[in-house]
This record gives sequence, C-alpha cells and structure tokens, in this order.
Amino acid sequence: MDDLTLIQIDRNVKQWLRQARTLVLTKMTERLTVNEKSSRKDLVTNVDKENEKFLITKIKNYAPDSHVLGEEGFGDQINREKGWIWIVDPIDGTMNFVKQQDHFAIMVALYIDGQGVLGYIYDVMNDELYSGGPNLGVFKNDVQLDQPANTALADGLVSLSAPLLIHDRFNLLQAADESSGVRVYGSAGIEMIHLLTGKIITYVSYLKPWDFAAGKILGETLGLVTSTIDGQPLDMLSSGFVMVATENAQRDILPIIGQNG
Amino acid sequence: MDDLTLIQIDRNVKQWLRQARTLVLTKMTERLTVNEKSSRKDLVTNVDKENEKFLITKIKNYAPDSHVLGEEGFGDQINREKGWIWIVDPIDGTMNFVKQQDHFAIMVALYIDGQGVLGYIYDVMNDELYSGGPNLGVFKNDVQLDQPANTALADGLVSLSAPLLIHDRFNLLQAADESSGVRVYGSAGIEMIHLLTGKIITYVSYLKPWDFAAGKILGETLGLVTSTIDGQPLDMLSSGFVMVATENAQRDILPIIGQNG
Repeated sequence: MDDLTLIQIDRNVKQWLRQARTLVLTKMTERLTVNEKSSRKDLVTNVDKENEKFLITKIKNYAPDSHVLGEEGFGDQINREKGWIWIVDPIDGTMNFVKQQDHFAIMVALYIDGQGVLGYIYDVMNDELYSGGPNLGVFKNDVQLDQPANTALADGLVSLSAPLLIHDRFNLLQAADESSGVRVYGSAGIEMIHLLTGKIITYVSYLKPWDFAAGKILGETLGLVTSTIDGQPLDMLSSGFVMVATENAQRDILPIIGQNG
Repeated sequence: MDDLTLIQIDRNVKQWLRQARTLVLTKMTERLTVNEKSSRKDLVTNVDKENEKFLITKIKNYAPDSHVLGEEGFGDQINREKGWIWIVDPIDGTMNFVKQQDHFAIMVALYIDGQGVLGYIYDVMNDELYSGGPNLGVFKNDVQLDQPANTALADGLVSLSAPLLIHDRFNLLQAADESSGVRVYGSAGIEMIHLLTGKIITYVSYLKPWDFAAGKILGETLGLVTSTIDGQPLDMLSSGFVMVATENAQRDILPIIGQNG
C-alpha cells in the first residue's frame, strides 16, 4: 500500500473516532444500561454496543471487502489472517467507564494479511488520540512520539493485572518486587498509552485480540516488544497471557517467569 | 475562626500552591537529583526538598506562630496538637514523579488545636487543585464538589497498596475479591482525589501524617470516613495503616479485616 492511501485511511479513521468520542460523551449524560457478560466483573453497556455498531458501519461503508472483529460480536467470524481485518474495541475498560466515567479508551486496528498497518487508542476523557503504525510513526494527537527509553525492570514501574498478582501466577510477584513498583489502571488501552509514553515499562495481563491489536502495532513501531507471557509471538486472532515491555524489561522478566513452578 | 479569616488564608495558600506548581514544572525541565531514603523504592529529589522549603517559608512568613510538619524534615518537631499545625507534602508520589513525570500531588493541610480546618491536594500535571474544609466545602479548582455516592464494597473500585495486596495483609485479598476491582495509582494524593470524585470507594495503605492530613479534611467534609485499618480514629501525628472509604464500604470491609488470622 502506498503512503498516500495510508494517509487517506488514517484521516478517515481519525474522523470516525472523533465522532465515536462525541457519541460516547453524549451517551454518558444519559442513563447507562449495564449487563454482565461472563461474570459480575465483566460488564457491557449500551454504549459499548452502540459505539461498536457505529464504527463497524463506518468501516464497512469505507472498505466493503474488510472483515471486522468486534469485542461485542457485531462484526464477522474470522478464522484466517488474509485480507483487510479491522479489530474494534468500542469501550476498553468498561468497568472504569461504568464506575469512574474515566480511564477508558476506544481502540481500532487495521491488519492486512496479518501485518499490523494502523493502530488507534483514544483516551476519551483526556481527548488524547494515539495513532499510527510502522509507516507513519506514532502520534499523540498531532505530536509525533519518540521511542520510550529502553528501561530495565529494576528501573521502571510495571502494570500487572490484579488477578495475576493476587494469585501469584507466573512468578509475577518476584517480577513486581524487582521492579520499581506496581501500578494497576484497569484498561489495556490506558496501560498501552502509559507504555508508549514511557510511564510504565511492562504490562502483563490476560488479553483478547481487541485488547492488544492496536497497542501491538503502536508499541512495536516505538521499539516495544509484544509477546505471549513466555516470549513467543502473538497470534492476533487468539486470546492469552500477553506481555508488552521494553526490550530490556522483557529480557529481565522472562527468566523470572521461567522459574515458575 | 471567622469565615472571612478562613477565606483569606485559603486565598493565600492557593497562591503559594500555584507558585509551587510553577516551581515544580520549571525544575522538571532540569536534571533531577534523586536519592534513596529508607530503600530503593523510597525516593526523594531536589524538587521535593526545594518545594518543601518554599512552602514552609511562605507559611512561616504568613503565620509566624505556626508549627510546620514537612515530609522532608525542613519543618518543626511536633509533639502535640495544640495551636496552628501545617502539614506539608511537597511531592506526594515521588516514585511517579521520577518515573512518570505524572500522577503526583502537592499537599498542604492546616489543623488548629487538632481540628482539620483546610486541606489542599494539587494534581500538578492536570492542573487540578482540590481544596476546602468543613466550613468552606470542597472545590476542584473553582467548582464545588458534591458528596460522592455512598457506594457499597461490591459496587465500587478499591485502591489497595501493592505491598499489602501482595502479602495479603489484613485479609485484603478477600476485600479486593468482593469489590468491583482493584486499582493502584501510586500516590496517596491521587488516590484521595479519586475518592473525592467517587472514582474509587476505598483506599488502604500504610501512610504517614503528610500522606493523609489533607485528604482526611477534604474526605470527611464530603462524607467519607477516615480511620485506622481497624476502624479506630486516626492520630494526625502518627503513621499507620489507614483506610479512607465511603461509609458503606467501610461497613463492608471492617468485618473482613476482622477475620484476619
């Protein structure tokens, strides 16, 4: 794909996302309908659903041959990586959205034949849109971001999902102890933003494709490594334990996880 | 103290804090000097020290008979609650300040004869100053805040310090499990702000007087309860395990902590 086409797609996606943000902010002034999915800690609201439908409609109108994988199930069943695949998380961090009205994100990613092309993470309440990909670089709104420092585990803050920490899965307590400290923000999108800007240096959580699709593209563009928790390549259509980290932090953590009994 | 005097003090403290914020932002553009205090996870920088000196000078010039308790030790030795006591935390969340250049606060509190009169928590990077007390109400910049909802444990997010969670002190894992989820922001000031605005409903951590002095005043003004972890009154000059919570969340958590073996 030539750069001009890429820039045109990018311009369109940003326009949809700004409209999606307005939709979300408007709906936040009305009464939410909140339902439980797999458990009482796994929520979905009418806003998740309406925003996913909005984004899928925009994508399908613009690029009708695309396949779309959406968190709330309004997209397509996708079994292979061929062609244009869009991955949509209409509200990432729905618990934060419901309980805090803050600290959540809208995320969109475009993969073509399995390759990450464009990623978007929109911190709605701060009105900060992180966007880009390998050909364009990564931007916070209109400002291009530099690579974050390649910080070692001992010198940075790490974000570990609370359930993994609580049950000491994968020897993560030792990794936490060797870091500068643990933070938990409750939204994969917000944690990814903090990785892109160097505020944390590692993020480990059980993630589904829509949780990591955009962050993988943006993170790898800025020199971060994304992998399974044991350092293997991510399958963009599968769920699992994911690690996003600086190269040096990944180097420090993998042997700790390897000691997991 | 009459309200006019209180409003005059409040106006002065806000002016000092805006100057302190400018001092901090300016110093952040220069190279930090970072030193360890009790451990490698307990940091102090030149900015903590310079800002504490700045605030203490302002206080002593304005109210020379005051005693000042400062985190970095440039204030007075204080053994009793009599008179005007100011409590100053020049940079709360120094680890965040050093590693994130975000998510930290400047905090000031004024107690008179042991009673909380005025409290201030300044989220420096977001330029949000939370201020007030029992006579004035609580403000976010110029906007008065309503009381947060009196949410029960099961219906809200809780902030528990990572070391307490990791070592399952006080049966806190069960409390975490019964809540809607755990968040960890790494600054008592930022956690207090999230309590004041209803984004979290409980905060438990080992705190020193400068960590909780301002938050206690602002929180109690908005109907939150501050206590030791077993529900006893806080001694404003002592360190210990502190719980700040909605009334209903405290009611739900105290029996869980009581089961602690």
